[in-house]
Amino acid sequence: MQPKRTLFLVSDHTGITVQTIAKTLLSQFEGVAFDRVQLPFVDTPEKVQAVRERIDTEAVRSEVRPIVLSSLTDSVLRERLKPCRGLVLDVFEAFIGALEQEFAKPASKAVGRAHGLVDKEAGRRRIQALKFALQTDDGVKYDDYPNADIILLGVSRSGKTPACLYLAMQFGLRAANYPLTEEDLEWGELPKALASYRDKLCGLLVDSRQLAKIREERQPGSGYASLAQCQKELRAALDIYRSANIPYLDTSNMSVEEIATRVMRLMQGGYKTSA
Amino acid sequence: MQPKRTLFLVSDHTGITVQTIAKTLLSQFEGVAFDRVQLPFVDTPEKVQAVRERIDTEAVRSEVRPIVLSSLTDSVLRERLKPCRGLVLDVFEAFIGALEQEFAKPASKAVGRAHGLVDKEAGRRRIQALKFALQTDDGVKYDDYPNADIILLGVSRSGKTPACLYLAMQFGLRAANYPLTEEDLEWGELPKALASYRDKLCGLLVDSRQLAKIREERQPGSGYASLAQCQKELRAALDIYRSANIPYLDTSNMSVEEIATRVMRLMQGGYKTSA
Repeated sequence: MQPKRTLFLVSDHTGITVQTIAKTLLSQFEGVAFDRVQLPFVDTPEKVQAVRERIDTEAVRSEVRPIVLSSLTDSVLRERLKPCRGLVLDVFEAFIGALEQEFAKPASKAVGRAHGLVDKEAGRRRIQALKFALQTDDGVKYDDYPNADIILLGVSRSGKTPACLYLAMQFGLRAANYPLTEEDLEWGELPKALASYRDKLCGLLVDSRQLAKIREERQPGSGYASLAQCQKELRAALDIYRSANIPYLDTSNMSVEEIATRVMRLMQGGYKTSA
Repeated sequence: MQPKRTLFLVSDHTGITVQTIAKTLLSQFEGVAFDRVQLPFVDTPEKVQAVRERIDTEAVRSEVRPIVLSSLTDSVLRERLKPCRGLVLDVFEAFIGALEQEFAKPASKAVGRAHGLVDKEAGRRRIQALKFALQTDDGVKYDDYPNADIILLGVSRSGKTPACLYLAMQFGLRAANYPLTEEDLEWGELPKALASYRDKLCGLLVDSRQLAKIREERQPGSGYASLAQCQKELRAALDIYRSANIPYLDTSNMSVEEIATRVMRLMQGGYKTSA
């Protein structure tokens, strides 16, 4: 086990980008633990100076060098951060030079373009998609299906709602969900209400033990939560997906990001996303 | 205007990281337009070979070189992608060497650690937080407030719901929202139900014209949507935030990411996030 490292996530805007990169990179080093310090909106020389002092103080205090993952658009600010006593890895520093050369033009240096005001249209689309997901989640609303980009099918508690919300938030897609009822499962064919939306459908499956555990938390000791019931429902759901010839996905052990991305892939990736 | 570039986003897992980096970097080049091709789950030499052929075909077809933003954990796969006819920028290539040296150990090369199975606990926390947000969003549920990390206050349609969902999804924080009612606004002080949760409170404000526009979409021509009514409510809300001495935020023109990040900052950043 290595000594704990302090990880500074420095950004001139929200810091979502450095958070994401940090997750990706640092998860590759098992046995290295981190204390994260998130420092968003560092967008003036004064703020960079304060950050630098904070990093230097930590470097003196700690026996190991702090790691600094940064996303600073302005090269002047980057230059001011660089001499600190941490290992500085900046996403602009790493890539922007190659891109400037490729496009034969300098980067604009305007802060916050990625997640800020500029992408207003995409933002509006995401909020609309989120509203759509919330509205259709309250119950089955057939009226909404013509406006859906995706309709997720699945038995109760198979993870439809988080997936729909993520598809909306990350990709601006209007995702509705259709909970397969007991009658649907007994009938054993695609519910009639869905017949006109075949190309929007994607079925979800999940490991029966995982499903039983989730249901048990909700209704302890119920027949609804029993392993036998979960197995029966999941088998019936699979039969429906197969007989209707619609794509389906086993979401066991998948994160919500992975479910959303795989659903999009299964549906041929034909969407224009706002991401 | 430059000719349109094809942007390949290549990842061995969901591709969320390269999507985020692409947003950040490419928004800095005004006048350069892109066609994005998302290629997630590229995790075998065969899949890399297929991607390489696709990039090369595009390079021959187009008058400009494709841009390839990639996140490939395995250096063998990176080496196979590199000789393609695009400009390849890989997040691992850029940073992993420096980190390996710093930690004096090699990266694990295991795919999907960031958003996959490994961070199961964080994933569970996010799903729980999401459930919490959905549940408290259905109406004011005072019982939930003791379990909240954050309670957002605001007048109707001031953006509380998307902010709560984002705080849950991205940071695993339990965010409840409290819609300020007409009675609250007339009374002019912090609603009594909130008095015990002062350190969890954050008020939202928004530009009155923006609010009127949003309300107008919902209830066209109503008094509720009139500019005068919006101005009155927002003034009263601000009075409450000030008199109660709670932090508040004007969310006009902010993306949901920025609102969530700024709310966390305002509340002293004392949270352990799952991000």
